[in-house]
Amino acid sequence: MSKQRLFTPGPTPVPEETLLELAKPVTYHRTAEQKAVFAEVVADLQYVYQTKNSVVVLTSSGTGGMEAAVSNTLAPGNKAILLTAGRWGERWKGILKAFGVETVLVEAAYGKAIPPADLEAALAKHPDTVAVFGTLSETSTGVGHDVATFGKIVAKTPALLVIDGISGLGAMECRTDDWNIDICVSGSQKALMMPPGLAYVAVSDKAWKRIEGNTASRSFYFDLKRYKAKIPENDTPFTPANTLIKAQRISLKRIRAEGIENLWARHALMANAARAAVKAMNLENFAERPNNALTVITVPAAIDGTAFLGKLEKQYGYKLANGQDNMKGKIWRLSHMGYLDPFDILGALSAIELVLVEMGHPFEAGAGVAAAQRVLAEGVRK
Amino acid sequence: MSKQRLFTPGPTPVPEETLLELAKPVTYHRTAEQKAVFAEVVADLQYVYQTKNSVVVLTSSGTGGMEAAVSNTLAPGNKAILLTAGRWGERWKGILKAFGVETVLVEAAYGKAIPPADLEAALAKHPDTVAVFGTLSETSTGVGHDVATFGKIVAKTPALLVIDGISGLGAMECRTDDWNIDICVSGSQKALMMPPGLAYVAVSDKAWKRIEGNTASRSFYFDLKRYKAKIPENDTPFTPANTLIKAQRISLKRIRAEGIENLWARHALMANAARAAVKAMNLENFAERPNNALTVITVPAAIDGTAFLGKLEKQYGYKLANGQDNMKGKIWRLSHMGYLDPFDILGALSAIELVLVEMGHPFEAGAGVAAAQRVLAEGVRK
Repeated sequence: MSKQRLFTPGPTPVPEETLLELAKPVTYHRTAEQKAVFAEVVADLQYVYQTKNSVVVLTSSGTGGMEAAVSNTLAPGNKAILLTAGRWGERWKGILKAFGVETVLVEAAYGKAIPPADLEAALAKHPDTVAVFGTLSETSTGVGHDVATFGKIVAKTPALLVIDGISGLGAMECRTDDWNIDICVSGSQKALMMPPGLAYVAVSDKAWKRIEGNTASRSFYFDLKRYKAKIPENDTPFTPANTLIKAQRISLKRIRAEGIENLWARHALMANAARAAVKAMNLENFAERPNNALTVITVPAAIDGTAFLGKLEKQYGYKLANGQDNMKGKIWRLSHMGYLDPFDILGALSAIELVLVEMGHPFEAGAGVAAAQRVLAEGVRK
Repeated sequence: MSKQRLFTPGPTPVPEETLLELAKPVTYHRTAEQKAVFAEVVADLQYVYQTKNSVVVLTSSGTGGMEAAVSNTLAPGNKAILLTAGRWGERWKGILKAFGVETVLVEAAYGKAIPPADLEAALAKHPDTVAVFGTLSETSTGVGHDVATFGKIVAKTPALLVIDGISGLGAMECRTDDWNIDICVSGSQKALMMPPGLAYVAVSDKAWKRIEGNTASRSFYFDLKRYKAKIPENDTPFTPANTLIKAQRISLKRIRAEGIENLWARHALMANAARAAVKAMNLENFAERPNNALTVITVPAAIDGTAFLGKLEKQYGYKLANGQDNMKGKIWRLSHMGYLDPFDILGALSAIELVLVEMGHPFEAGAGVAAAQRVLAEGVRK
């Protein structure tokens, strides 16, 4: 028997009742029933975001939500500060370039986090900055950024704080309002326990003011003003992926029932267990400031990282993610997002140990799972 | 018992096996298996389009595909001719305006079709036209356009022919290559028997040449060059709605098995039956040049059109579409798209008759269904 288990940091496992919702007959999208569903989804997303701001629902990948954040707030030639420490920071860079934005780079190496002091210095040097772009969970390295402090710094200026929370939201603490995040982008296929296809954009009043004054923007499908105009009707300007919205409602109900703080705590427990196991297996955690959405492991020099992942999947059905682009073969990424609990993580760690043993990695077999188990036991006792 | 039946021109009914595919566990999107699925979907879409051109798969509403067609081919200040005879022509107009295109309007009233001679005259007057935009099935009125003739006219010029085939493709004859359509946009939720969430864009070599030379374009998510670069790998540049792509494969297999000409013929049979029934029920077909994706009925002066649709849905479970915007209450729109066969149409006509009788419309009860049945009998004998 070969049981397949998904531990990639998006797409992630989806609860059975959400999948079954997707198998229901398709309905028309402009009905009172669909509008009630939409209102419920938006309210539950506001809860997940911890915000009173409006949340826009886009039918697109997360990148579409990122583009909406750029194209709506900035005109060509405007200045932005970009905090980048990995591939998803680079995604912002590509979008900012495509839209002709003058971008000031504040960079950190892969595996490191941007120190808030670097942002403060950049803002002082560039007081004409219109927006600051950053990443909550840099999924390419496992780093989590100190967005709370970024928010304190940016809130003192006229600039907007725009955060890619695609793989962070739900998996790690993110308090959109308390942290002064003006635009926070997320997606369905990460901690929100859904297939890909929907992007979410939470927009503050400060951001709406900027968006409404930005007449130089060229966009239509991602024109956030068109979505805002439909919010009072609980509707969208264009035919949405309405079956995905109905399914998202089901997964969000599960999150509501668990409670957002418990959700963060569950991810913390899984991440702490995994990180303890990594050390006990004589391996290293790659991220300097790790976040709880995923655990990123540095591949030891003696092991072929890509071959390792192939064995893990082929022999034991565990699908982890490789490093992307130039990180390929150098790191392994074990997601904690989606419909996963600590026992799922324990199973994944067990399979990892088996392949480590097979590939001759020097460590005490069983030590990883035991270390994780101790963290779990401690977590349950709390 | 209340059985619900969907006859709106998008979303449309989806086959059970496609819905069940959506209930399967979610998988990672960058795998050999997913790439094989993607290749199959693109090949089957090429078959539906009747094209050798590349077909780009976007995670978005159909409007996203339309925006891609505009933003990739045109720079602000470029000239375009827009053939518009309804709400979907107006959708092109809104997008062209958002992207700063100088648009020459060739208009026809709601319910009428654009005469090809009007396009010929406009092109002669505006030889600097970069692209001509039109609509295959103008779903807001039920009109089908003579895209074959549009194609003959535009092919003689340097201009591109860009067609919104969102609700036409699959439901009516559309030969992308033979008709010289340079860009043809479609969507999953119409005749392709899927929920909403995916847009498809078929792009000719002539169009690619234009796109590659158009350096003034500002786009990222809808930058077609990024999608083209991924075609050799059977991949997409951004995380696609991969569960929808897997489900689209199932519905496309059904279309392949039926055969594209049989698919067109089935829609023609359903549309001919419905149109015959409309006349026999002492009603009028609204469209001057009706297409086979849907039948649009003019609401008689003595009947409250919106109340009629409410009764049809509440009493008999048949969900038809109202007119949009200023057409509301003036027309009824009965779709023939999606997982529907002639017997489904017969049932819808029967329910329509019952409400007409109830609302005192003067006609011979049973005449509509009988007229439709005669068309079906004739169709089967062929």
